[in-house]
Amino acid sequence: MTNPALGVCYYPEHWPEAMWEADAARMAELGIRVVRIGEFAWSRLEPTPSDVRLDWMIRAMDVLGRHDLQVIVGTPTATPPRWMVDKHPDMLAVDAQGHRKGFGSRRHYDFSHLGYRAEAARITQILADALGDHPALGGWQTDNEYGCHGTTYSYSPAARDGFRLWLRNRYGTIGALNAAWGTVFWSMEYNSFEQIDLPNLLVCDAAPAHELDFRRYSSEQVSAFNKVQYDILKARRPDLPVIHNFMSRYSEFDHYRLGESIDIASWDSYPIGHLAKSDETPEHKAQYLRQGDPDNAAFHHDLYRTVGHGRWWIMEQQPGPVNWADANPDPLPGMARLWAWEAFAHGAEVVSYFRWRQAPFGQEQMHAGLLRPDSEPAPGYAEAGQVAQELTQIGFAGAPARARIALVYDYESEWAWEIQPQAAGFGHGNHVRALYAAFRKHGLDVDVLPPTTADLSGYQIVAIPALMAWTDELREAVANFDGHLLIGPRTGSKTAHFAIPPQLGPDLGAGLLDARITRIDSLPEGIEVAVKGGGATRLWRERIEGGPEVVMEDVEGVPVLVSQGKLFYLTASGDKALVQRVVDYLIAEADTPTLTLPAGVRCRVRGDFRIYVNYASSEQRLTLAPDEAGYVLGGASIAAAGVTVARLSRAD
Amino acid sequence: MTNPALGVCYYPEHWPEAMWEADAARMAELGIRVVRIGEFAWSRLEPTPSDVRLDWMIRAMDVLGRHDLQVIVGTPTATPPRWMVDKHPDMLAVDAQGHRKGFGSRRHYDFSHLGYRAEAARITQILADALGDHPALGGWQTDNEYGCHGTTYSYSPAARDGFRLWLRNRYGTIGALNAAWGTVFWSMEYNSFEQIDLPNLLVCDAAPAHELDFRRYSSEQVSAFNKVQYDILKARRPDLPVIHNFMSRYSEFDHYRLGESIDIASWDSYPIGHLAKSDETPEHKAQYLRQGDPDNAAFHHDLYRTVGHGRWWIMEQQPGPVNWADANPDPLPGMARLWAWEAFAHGAEVVSYFRWRQAPFGQEQMHAGLLRPDSEPAPGYAEAGQVAQELTQIGFAGAPARARIALVYDYESEWAWEIQPQAAGFGHGNHVRALYAAFRKHGLDVDVLPPTTADLSGYQIVAIPALMAWTDELREAVANFDGHLLIGPRTGSKTAHFAIPPQLGPDLGAGLLDARITRIDSLPEGIEVAVKGGGATRLWRERIEGGPEVVMEDVEGVPVLVSQGKLFYLTASGDKALVQRVVDYLIAEADTPTLTLPAGVRCRVRGDFRIYVNYASSEQRLTLAPDEAGYVLGGASIAAAGVTVARLSRAD
Amino acid sequence: MTNPALGVCYYPEHWPEAMWEADAARMAELGIRVVRIGEFAWSRLEPTPSDVRLDWMIRAMDVLGRHDLQVIVGTPTATPPRWMVDKHPDMLAVDAQGHRKGFGSRRHYDFSHLGYRAEAARITQILADALGDHPALGGWQTDNEYGCHGTTYSYSPAARDGFRLWLRNRYGTIGALNAAWGTVFWSMEYNSFEQIDLPNLLVCDAAPAHELDFRRYSSEQVSAFNKVQYDILKARRPDLPVIHNFMSRYSEFDHYRLGESIDIASWDSYPIGHLAKSDETPEHKAQYLRQGDPDNAAFHHDLYRTVGHGRWWIMEQQPGPVNWADANPDPLPGMARLWAWEAFAHGAEVVSYFRWRQAPFGQEQMHAGLLRPDSEPAPGYAEAGQVAQELTQIGFAGAPARARIALVYDYESEWAWEIQPQAAGFGHGNHVRALYAAFRKHGLDVDVLPPTTADLSGYQIVAIPALMAWTDELREAVANFDGHLLIGPRTGSKTAHFAIPPQLGPDLGAGLLDARITRIDSLPEGIEVAVKGGGATRLWRERIEGGPEVVMEDVEGVPVLVSQGKLFYLTASGDKALVQRVVDYLIAEADTPTLTLPAGVRCRVRGDFRIYVNYASSEQRLTLAPDEAGYVLGGASIAAAGVTVARLSRAD
Ligand SMILES: [Zn+2]
Ligand SMILES: [Zn+2]
Ligand SMILES: [Zn+2]
Repeated sequence: MTNPALGVCYYPEHWPEAMWEADAARMAELGIRVVRIGEFAWSRLEPTPSDVRLDWMIRAMDVLGRHDLQVIVGTPTATPPRWMVDKHPDMLAVDAQGHRKGFGSRRHYDFSHLGYRAEAARITQILADALGDHPALGGWQTDNEYGCHGTTYSYSPAARDGFRLWLRNRYGTIGALNAAWGTVFWSMEYNSFEQIDLPNLLVCDAAPAHELDFRRYSSEQVSAFNKVQYDILKARRPDLPVIHNFMSRYSEFDHYRLGESIDIASWDSYPIGHLAKSDETPEHKAQYLRQGDPDNAAFHHDLYRTVGHGRWWIMEQQPGPVNWADANPDPLPGMARLWAWEAFAHGAEVVSYFRWRQAPFGQEQMHAGLLRPDSEPAPGYAEAGQVAQELTQIGFAGAPARARIALVYDYESEWAWEIQPQAAGFGHGNHVRALYAAFRKHGLDVDVLPPTTADLSGYQIVAIPALMAWTDELREAVANFDGHLLIGPRTGSKTAHFAIPPQLGPDLGAGLLDARITRIDSLPEGIEVAVKGGGATRLWRERIEGGPEVVMEDVEGVPVLVSQGKLFYLTASGDKALVQRVVDYLIAEADTPTLTLPAGVRCRVRGDFRIYVNYASSEQRLTLAPDEAGYVLGGASIAAAGVTVARLSRAD
Repeated sequence: MTNPALGVCYYPEHWPEAMWEADAARMAELGIRVVRIGEFAWSRLEPTPSDVRLDWMIRAMDVLGRHDLQVIVGTPTATPPRWMVDKHPDMLAVDAQGHRKGFGSRRHYDFSHLGYRAEAARITQILADALGDHPALGGWQTDNEYGCHGTTYSYSPAARDGFRLWLRNRYGTIGALNAAWGTVFWSMEYNSFEQIDLPNLLVCDAAPAHELDFRRYSSEQVSAFNKVQYDILKARRPDLPVIHNFMSRYSEFDHYRLGESIDIASWDSYPIGHLAKSDETPEHKAQYLRQGDPDNAAFHHDLYRTVGHGRWWIMEQQPGPVNWADANPDPLPGMARLWAWEAFAHGAEVVSYFRWRQAPFGQEQMHAGLLRPDSEPAPGYAEAGQVAQELTQIGFAGAPARARIALVYDYESEWAWEIQPQAAGFGHGNHVRALYAAFRKHGLDVDVLPPTTADLSGYQIVAIPALMAWTDELREAVANFDGHLLIGPRTGSKTAHFAIPPQLGPDLGAGLLDARITRIDSLPEGIEVAVKGGGATRLWRERIEGGPEVVMEDVEGVPVLVSQGKLFYLTASGDKALVQRVVDYLIAEADTPTLTLPAGVRCRVRGDFRIYVNYASSEQRLTLAPDEAGYVLGGASIAAAGVTVARLSRAD
Repeated sequence: MTNPALGVCYYPEHWPEAMWEADAARMAELGIRVVRIGEFAWSRLEPTPSDVRLDWMIRAMDVLGRHDLQVIVGTPTATPPRWMVDKHPDMLAVDAQGHRKGFGSRRHYDFSHLGYRAEAARITQILADALGDHPALGGWQTDNEYGCHGTTYSYSPAARDGFRLWLRNRYGTIGALNAAWGTVFWSMEYNSFEQIDLPNLLVCDAAPAHELDFRRYSSEQVSAFNKVQYDILKARRPDLPVIHNFMSRYSEFDHYRLGESIDIASWDSYPIGHLAKSDETPEHKAQYLRQGDPDNAAFHHDLYRTVGHGRWWIMEQQPGPVNWADANPDPLPGMARLWAWEAFAHGAEVVSYFRWRQAPFGQEQMHAGLLRPDSEPAPGYAEAGQVAQELTQIGFAGAPARARIALVYDYESEWAWEIQPQAAGFGHGNHVRALYAAFRKHGLDVDVLPPTTADLSGYQIVAIPALMAWTDELREAVANFDGHLLIGPRTGSKTAHFAIPPQLGPDLGAGLLDARITRIDSLPEGIEVAVKGGGATRLWRERIEGGPEVVMEDVEGVPVLVSQGKLFYLTASGDKALVQRVVDYLIAEADTPTLTLPAGVRCRVRGDFRIYVNYASSEQRLTLAPDEAGYVLGGASIAAAGVTVARLSRAD
């Protein structure tokens, strides 16, 4: 699937079979080319144990195929049927308070439960066998939104047993574990792996290394669960892609690791709901109430492009109001188009709207679709159709531009600072996203890199903020990097076992940064220390000892940004203004060319196109950039929720 | 009991028998005519299993009777004694987190537990047999405050088993249930009723129809529990009323349905505590800190008048500071009088103060009585005495006026929007109460009607806001109504099975409102959209499609109030100003005569009297209304917490 | 140990034995004389059941002793090793929700579990036997921070059984208990002690007397647990002190009662963390962000001086940022010195910093030490050294001055108002601390007295605010006191069984205060009533009936401060201004001499010295007081975080 295409999520089991044909015809007419089905249909595929009924699904695929729609079949493992729970009562996960969670919604399974893992393999094999040669089949989706509703972690006997085994494999001897976890600290030393429990329902905090290992273990169970399905599906049809649909700001498992067992990453983009549920300020939420955060979707596009080894989709695209935030505003007219365009700009192969028709029953009956429950077009319908036409009209294609800027984003670092924030609100991801937004304000494309990146060459600027611990690869990459590098705060402040490194952070090799972090001053929300020249530090301030040159300091004379050659160390968490200043400084140092964008406007280059999108709620005016030959869609005037596409005068 | 009378709640078991005579004498002297006793006395009535001791109670009734006090005997089933829990360990309810609740306070029983239901029947029969012919007996109270402290819902095995049976009776086949609940949505289909669990401890939301049916089931258990006692008590003394005492803003069971098994509704009115525990704004709470909300008690008077088929009491009237809110301010001097007068104005037969003497021990030792713990009069004592004198002095009597305005209030709609608010804070009851207050500002009497109302004739204006689903009766009543009718927002937006109707809301028959609601824009608190001409929409905005005339629209041009003949549809939740504008518009359209009331003053007509009460904290000035012959109590100047009664020049 | 000395907390088990010698040498060089060890070392002292290994500890003591360091050995009972939990699975406490708490942090034991109590005795005996004659041994610490992390209360079967037995011993007959608890109130009467459960997981509130007795019981288990160790340690070495380290604003057990089984009280002072976790206002927290509350440490110094019968230490002194508050700011430079000086001023014998070296692993790896993890000096290191030098330099010594002011602080009153605040936020301790701060603003020394104080002579002013119930001793002491006495609000408002006294509060003997409290007006946060002349009442207002003279009244004419001779009764909770006015009035009445202190400066007299400390963040200017001969450390100009010591011209 080389050319960008639209898709839609469809649930034939929700509608009378008599409606399928008309639905398929309208999809095709609208310009849809991909249809995802099946991911919640287990109770229809196997109504009672071993009574497998795939006939209806094959008929649904027949209908869709007749209209040249490619079908992505989801394995239904996110919603095991009720009889499964009778078969495996202990497959239900246990929450941190020790309560067994019940049947009656979805994702009611424990990733550590090997019995259920085998059932998941069984149904996957059944689908692979029966549908693998269907001509409409375009690929597979494994499960649905791994981890959604807090399901990565379970505190069950199955998880406990699995964790013990995993620890035995990891450490070999209990002495090695005791050393790694620092259990001598509070007499927490174990005599055997059988004594180790999960880190919940404790009197106070568990050892951070204990917590971190439990998160690593849990993350690996998700990967292992997925890999079982991946292997089955690939064995059956090596040529078809296996996809999973990830989420926004969800970090409970390591997506890079899981990405080793998928061919294409996809994610479910609900910009308005995601902003509503985020920890952004009320002012920011009000400003982008009907648009969503102007950088959050883009960040995830870039993240999942990396997770998918360069291939990625939007599997579920918000088409209108959703149902699951505290309030669910109607998007600005045009946003369903804008979001799709922005995804394509960042390299999406497919943008698939969720869902074809609003369901009048069930938990998501207030979630809009492209069609209303009465089958009339909802506002998103026309916007989707417009996107389909525009893609064709301008011959949109090409690979996303290689960025000059890269940011390292690391799941373990997210876990680390959740376990030990030291200042409430200190996190890894928000440091990464703040830098992302600051670079993007200048029209710069950004890549997101994993912490195992071994080579940074080709980038002009790389930033590695708030990284818990260096991997060997990244340590090497940093040592060999000849661009401008920004690290800190808190980068390299721990070993892999969640201890302070012997020579303290940032724990880089000698010669790179001859300095160490000797003291942390952590601050509550609302307390800021101004930086000379503008901006302020907040939450986190480090004292650095050593020789680097001071680039910025705060009004108390404490160094904030220091440098040694092209390596910059930021000692503090900054407010927006400070982060922007630091980014601007780096851009100037690296002599990276930038664009001047109106407020609320963002852009990205793909192939020979630069796509502009306007998240502001008012019209903005663009200036043709030196490398642009002219506009091929829209123009210099870009309305609220508008899209303008420029053609570049040279290939990127 | 045709003439309004005062009562009091008395606990002879709390005091030495030697004090009873003097207490009774003082009650009679104060003007009290009704005394409720016994509702928490089971451990004294049956100290050990089957050791029944009613002698002391009979002696207490003898004493009270000698002073011409009528006794209401409460069945003690809200406080089963400790030994009962040994007999039926599983009678204790289980909370939503799965924790069995213990003995040591009150209401420690599960409505679904049939063993305890039989015990309740047994003690009721014992009381009926032994006390049924006592000359002082004036009636019965069943249990006490059903549902208080979150006790309507239990997640016990008993509840689960009862629910399954109830579902089987309701649906007949599991297929019918699957269809009704839309379980296909997430593969939640059941193979048998035995597989159905209660909707707690799930991974995410249950199907809304599952939740709603559990609420219906739980509500019916409360009714069934009450009916057992009702049948026993009526069999023994068909002539005496059976009463239950309900609460404020409490909607966990359907009071209309329970009302089928009582003769008189009563409720426990604690205006200051109720305001403190409500979700009103801090400003509103500060303004009415020592008075309580100026419309809340009145609303419940009107609601329970309907629940009681026209007969209703205040069983517990706040006499001073209570003990159960976060802070418990002293009422303004006069409020204990005002509250009683307002209750009588709305048709109360009896207003009974809680309690005679403040208890120095136990959970409510900080709750004021008419007497202090040292038996000296508390401030409420004199106020109660004043009310008694005034009632006699002006010969107060008569039926409450038939209102020109009616509002439909529906318990299922409360449940529905708690289950699926879509905008946090969206509820049924607050829409009803906002309209109630807006009508009352004009001195209009209001009736509250159940959703099963089959005839609306006689009313000039009827409002049905935020109703989940039409009943057949109400659908018919609306079709035949020739007054002005206001519906919406969200009225008729669901079927009885909590699905979106095939033709969308408001789901009225053709010809009434040729329009449908096609889209919901829900908003967080703090975001408002101004309406042209004044007021604003908030939380909830609908897009309406179809032909009605636009009466009001917002600044974005979205219709807010539309009309088709005398049927008006409100598409949004409004702020106070908008609700008042809509009400004012309807009043003008309907040509309903109004009064002009000073701020904080409210009024109601009963018999030949119009009673004014002043909730403001400063004196206000009344104007004699055209239909008033003059003041018979107080005058045009009405002090803070004051009461003025006008005699009407014509019967209402 | 008569001369003030510095100490440090050291964990030899955390470091290679090769480091011990250098550590000890540096400690001695810095001026440290006391080292606490061992309190979390059980897993090293007894790695598997009965495999006792004290050799390393003896070697550590040898090393320390060689450098003239006195060793305080902590019993390791706060951290039983993992194998202990296998031996006694039910030794783990149960939280109020009924969840058994697990192993993996610390304090994972139930004070009611007699099996674990025996294990604690066993390890204590082992340590006493093996180390009792070590020449470096200077004393013992029992356990660590009893009750930390909410561990005083457990809702386990062990606690339930212990509670039943305790009640049987206390009441003798179940009838006596029923009478004391007022169980007739809601039919809660018990037939036997075996029926009584713990007051958790109830439908609503337990009887307050039930709650209070459970708190008393739980408090006594802590004392009993401690006494077991105390008796063993004293039997072995009657000459050496047994110490426990208490906490800040921690009141879940009665420290006076536990103090009967210790020789020296100590506490763990973390001023910045304590302020961060307190309920002080955000403004106050911001003002003292890097200093801690200027009165909180001093209050606890004075409290624990009383708990320790005049002997007390700081066992853990904050040396830099801690790790356990939401944010953990760096102290102002100088605070580690100031805090030590202030402790010595209040009579501390030893101030022991926590900890020697920051641990790079485990739960507290972000907690600063005197050394950094890389063994370089942290900022606190030099400050500690400076204190050691200064103590010697000025020959600091002497007993803390006997104060002219005393405040009664009572643990049962803390429990009482937590159980029954009546106004959310009403507490005992905050009344005591508000008065403490108001007296201290005038440079007055204050003693803290237990509620069992039998003699108040020698004090000019005594205040007893918000006392639940009089003890016989205190009743007597008050009757005989000839100084100025302030009581109220709520003082003497209950009997020992948590009932309202028959003649109402304040329940003093006739002739002392011929008045009673007849009504409570409790108010939510944010509502205040101004007092004529300044200040305001808040939360709590009483109506008083009787003859005393009115000293202050509010703008509504309600008496606020009344007097009868030298007895003053305060009827309300006041804001800071009112509390200060009341204190100022009493000081004037009692003719107590005062000092004028700059904002943020506090002082205390010990021996011939008056020590000034400056909590302000800017320099302040002192005035030499009439009784001062001159400054022996610092001078009239006192920097932020500065210390000035004056020598008195006469002994106090
Ligand atoms: Zn639980
Ligand atoms: Zn999801
Ligand atoms: Zn602690």
